[in-house]
This record gives sequence, C-alpha cells and structure tokens, in this order.
Amino acid sequence: MEERVEGLWSDVRELNLGTTTEIEHLHNPPTPLCFLRDFVSQNKPCLISNATTHWPALSLWPSNSYLCKALKDSTISLHLTPNGRADALTTFTLPNNKNSLTCFASAFVKRMPFDRALNLIATKTEKKGTVAYMQQQNDCLLEEFGVIAGDVAAEVGWATEAFGCSPEAANLWIGNGESETWWHKDHYENLYAVVSGEKHFLLLPPTDVHRLYVKEYPAAQYTCDDDHDLESGELRLELEEPLRYIPWCSVDPYPSPERRGREMSLYPRYFNGPKPFECTVKAGDMLYLPSMWFHHVRQTPDSEGKTIAVNYWYDMQFDIKYAYFYFLQSISLPSNDPEKAQHPDTEDYKKQQVLQIPIGEQED
Amino acid sequence: MEERVEGLWSDVRELNLGTTTEIEHLHNPPTPLCFLRDFVSQNKPCLISNATTHWPALSLWPSNSYLCKALKDSTISLHLTPNGRADALTTFTLPNNKNSLTCFASAFVKRMPFDRALNLIATKTEKKGTVAYMQQQNDCLLEEFGVIAGDVAAEVGWATEAFGCSPEAANLWIGNGESETWWHKDHYENLYAVVSGEKHFLLLPPTDVHRLYVKEYPAAQYTCDDDHDLESGELRLELEEPLRYIPWCSVDPYPSPERRGREMSLYPRYFNGPKPFECTVKAGDMLYLPSMWFHHVRQTPDSEGKTIAVNYWYDMQFDIKYAYFYFLQSISLPSNDPEKAQHPDTEDYKKQQVLQIPIGEQED
Repeated sequence: MEERVEGLWSDVRELNLGTTTEIEHLHNPPTPLCFLRDFVSQNKPCLISNATTHWPALSLWPSNSYLCKALKDSTISLHLTPNGRADALTTFTLPNNKNSLTCFASAFVKRMPFDRALNLIATKTEKKGTVAYMQQQNDCLLEEFGVIAGDVAAEVGWATEAFGCSPEAANLWIGNGESETWWHKDHYENLYAVVSGEKHFLLLPPTDVHRLYVKEYPAAQYTCDDDHDLESGELRLELEEPLRYIPWCSVDPYPSPERRGREMSLYPRYFNGPKPFECTVKAGDMLYLPSMWFHHVRQTPDSEGKTIAVNYWYDMQFDIKYAYFYFLQSISLPSNDPEKAQHPDTEDYKKQQVLQIPIGEQED
Repeated sequence: MEERVEGLWSDVRELNLGTTTEIEHLHNPPTPLCFLRDFVSQNKPCLISNATTHWPALSLWPSNSYLCKALKDSTISLHLTPNGRADALTTFTLPNNKNSLTCFASAFVKRMPFDRALNLIATKTEKKGTVAYMQQQNDCLLEEFGVIAGDVAAEVGWATEAFGCSPEAANLWIGNGESETWWHKDHYENLYAVVSGEKHFLLLPPTDVHRLYVKEYPAAQYTCDDDHDLESGELRLELEEPLRYIPWCSVDPYPSPERRGREMSLYPRYFNGPKPFECTVKAGDMLYLPSMWFHHVRQTPDSEGKTIAVNYWYDMQFDIKYAYFYFLQSISLPSNDPEKAQHPDTEDYKKQQVLQIPIGEQED
C-alpha cells in the first residue's frame, strides 16, 4: 500500500501540479471563470500579483503610527506563546519533572489595547521571553479591526463571483519574524493577501496527508497568572482538564540541528518524499490556498517590525475531492514512531498515554 | 480495506451526489460559471432541458425520408453485432467446441450508403439476426454526416466557454432498441444530446470503480465473409491475433433471469451496493456526463424505428480528481470470480488463460 500512496504523490505532481517546488504565478487577477477552471476545480494553488493594488491599506498599514492612531480606542485579542508556536506541538514536562510528552499547545489569549499589543509584536527587546501574534481568526477583520477594515476590500470580487458567495470570514494577522504557523489544513477555500512584510508558505497537497503523520495529541494551553509579566515570558503550559485530544500534524519542517536526525527517522515520508511547494507572498500579492491543502507559514517583518496579512475564507465544496481525501486519510501506513500508533481512537489508549507515565514514576 | 472503499461509495453520495437514483435536473442551460462551479468542478452529472431548442435537427431528423434524402450521397460506417452488444463482453466458444471463454467483442464495421444502413437499423424483420448501430465515434458528425451537421450546433456554447476550448470530437449515434452500450468510462467531459427517441443511462461515479470488476479480456471481432448476408446474421466472432487484452467492466446490469444468480454471486459489490443513478434523456434534453463516470446506455426508438443522439467530447483535466481515481483503482479488492484475479498483468498468465484450455482438451 505504501508504494501506491507514494505513486499518488508523484502522479498528482506529474499530471497537474508540476514537479518543481514552484506554484503558478499570475501577474494579474484571473477572471472568475479562469479562476474556477484552472485552479479551484483542480484544487491547485496560485500566487496572484496586482490583486490588491487598489487597497489603501498597502500604503497606510506599514506605518505603526497610522495603525495606533486609527485603532487607539480598539481592544484586540493578542495570542502569546514563549516560542512563537501557537496551535503547534511542544514538549510538556509532567509534574514529576522526569517525564515529558508531546502536546498540542494553544496560545495564551489576552485582550488588550491595540497599541500595547502592537508594541509587544514590533518592539525587539534584548531578553524577550514571549512572542506575540494578533491572529484571532473569528472574522476578526470586522470584529476587532472594524475601524480600519475599510482600508482593504470586504471581499475579493472575482473570487466571490467564482465561489458564488461572499466570504464566510475575513481575518487580519499581525505578527513578527518569531511567529510561525505549524503544518495544518483548513476546510475553507483561502485567499491570503499580504499587506506589509512577507509570508513564506510551505504547501503540500491533500494527497500527501500521510507525509505529515497526523496523530492525536493532548491539548494544552499557555496561561499567565500576572498580566504585567507578559513581556518577561512567565507563561506556563497546562494540560486541558478533562483531557481532550486534537488530531494534528507531527512534522516540524525546520527542526533544530540536534533534533533533525531524530525527526528524519520518525517522519521519513516527509523528509524523503517530494519537497513541499514553496511560495513567498510579498506585500501586494495574494495566494490562492485551495481547501484541504496543508500549509506551514513563517514571516519576515517590514521595516517597522511587523508582518500584516488579510485572508478571506470562502466555503468549500464537500464534493468528490473531499470524499477521496477522507478515504485516503483512512488508510493506515506503518509508523516509525514507537510512542503511539497513528489515529489512536480508544479512550483507554489515550488515558494510558498521558496519565500512566507519571503514575508509574511515582510508584518507584 | 473493503469497508473503507464501501465508505467512499456512501460518503460521495451523502456529501455531494445525493442518496437517491436521480441526478440534478436543470430546466434551462446553466451559465458557464455555474456549470463549472456546480457540476464540472464537483464531477457531478446533470440533465439539462431546453439546451437544444434552436436546433433544426429536432424537427428534421425524426423523419427517415429527410435523412435519406439529405444523406443520399453519403457513405457511413455501420457497426454490426448479432446481439446489439458492441464493445461488450460475450462468450467465445473455442475451436474444440467444448470450452468457452469470455472475451471483449467489437462490432463488424461495414461502410455502406446511408439509406441502406438506416434501413438495417429502422426496419423490423421477423427473423433478423444482426443488430445495426451507427456509432463510429471518430468525430463522425463532421467526418461522415457533414451534410446534416448544420442541423445541430457545432459545439455547446456555454460548455465551450466553461471548458475554455472547443470540443475534441462531436459524434452522431443512430441506433434502435436492440443496441445497448456496455458499462465503460471515457476520458472526456461529455455533453450528450438526444435528438429523436430516448436514451436510458445508468451512471456510477468514478469512486465506484471496484463495483464494476474491471478485468482484462481477450479482444475479439465480429466478421462477415459475405456482405449480402448482413441481414441474415452470418457474423462470426474471431479472437484477435496476436492476442490483445482489453481492461473492461465485467458487470452486465441486466442479466437474463437464468444468469442473474451467477452474476450476483460473482459481482456482489455491484448488485448489493448503492443503486446506480438513472437518467432518461428525451429528445431535446442534454446530459452532462462528467469525465471518468461509468455509464451503461439503452435506447427507445422514435415512431420511425430509430434513436438519434449527438454528443460532444471536451478534453478533461488530469488533475487531483484523476490522480485520486488512479490511486483508488490500483487497490485490489477480493474477487469471487474463480476464473482469474483482477488486473492480471503478466503475459504468461494471459497466454495460459486463453491458449492452454484448448490445448489441454486436445490432449485428452
């Protein structure tokens, strides 16, 4: 079976996506018909230039002082982590301090005035222990940044016409070079426009799902007891209670040199298979990120220390492509990971995985 | 694995195609954008009414005398079989008269004046041993019926705009109630318009490929030594030499009562799975038959004894949908057929299958 799945990875590239790491680049926005025919229907990404030239945001938002003035009365949600990795895997040390496990960590989310949040993102301090990211994703362009929403389009005209509906959500993202977004996929068609700075995407098609070793991880949350300590990084990681499991991609595409060997032996289908597609989205460019495509995102800040993007989520079609994906995902391939099988689905297994390690230690 | 594949059959219906045997019916032609979005992109069929109301053929072609007059100087290719089944499985009796095997039989194709061919199709005689069908499929609307091609559209405007290209081929089909087209799929997007009589389609999505038990069958051809015997049915079936193998669907959806039990036990995934979609295309209606969909076709003649259809084949996209299909098809499921495994792919096996049976018998 493994050979057949590997055949699928190469077939989709040879037939349709191309065998390099580049995606197609349109120098102007497509017509709705061409967008549907050449990209959406084929579930194929593209980078589009000159799609946002009419947005006032392109000239206004690079200025931190413009943003702080415009949003001086706004309270926004800031996501804080010690390492720039929210909704990512991290190591959780159990209370006995001897054992650790890998968990899915969510950011500590703190509501605060916009200017304080931007300051946390854009100001480099010598010994900063937290990484801040505005990435609320609940249609936050209107919900939290309503006063500047008019600087960008409320929707992408040609995309709205192609999809036959307005976006389900539009989100604004302000981060810095320390934040990255772990491999994941969304059940939306995504149009992702960079306004300031650059975003660096790694992309893998849905056919490559086994290469990311999706497994269930216990959910954990960063917390902070003292709001005034946000700058000094006093974030604690706590497992959710009751235990909750999140299926998440296992692969870190940029492991530290000392972890690289271990990661490569654990996740050979990722590191030995075809390279991910790579796409840098610059200010003024827009990425069409098709539904169900896995993506990993890093960013380069502008001259004032931040990267800004706006994305539009349009409802996807749960059609034959989705049915095929769901079928493919259901096929188990062997794992080199001694810790757990893929897709563990018994409650017993889950409890054992997290809870029996400390109990065992305590009995010593 | 079998359960997962069965899950795919139900998922694609529950998510997208519907769980009845009906397909969507549009009462007017769609816009190119809606056609792409709601049908082509989703690989989903639909029946379209009022798409050909402007065709002169709708009023002219039901008349046999109009056709004979217009095509009086035309020579066309007539496909002849003893049973109405061309490009279908049939039983071939080996020369020793003791053994038989199932082969893929192609029609005897005879070039003749149009009026003689139409007479063979439309005239019922008491003891007729051949079934005649004009179904040349080599862009025959222009190649063989050029003088009446102007009675229909050269292409389907909204489809041409949606697909971004003109049709690769347009074919004309004139048959009668005796002809049927065995389960198969085409690597084209198909728009199929009925001009006179009715066509009855059974349809299965590409996800259901295992339900048709595609296997390789030796190719055979009907031949006739004496052209004057066409009416009396003196067609002989001959295996091609050298042997050539055709992968073809094994299932006869309408087996005779005495064969039904055997067929149901050989092909349980077909007979016990979800019913095929059913669609009768009446004169004036058009079927969008998506690429890679399996279809089986029967027909009801008009009052002058014939069914006429015109179809347009547009190039398909070999995109992620095709890559998924190809992957799915590569997965072997168990077979109840003792004669052979699915997808036999060694030359030795093939030779053994056809040739060793008579040799064995001769040695007795």
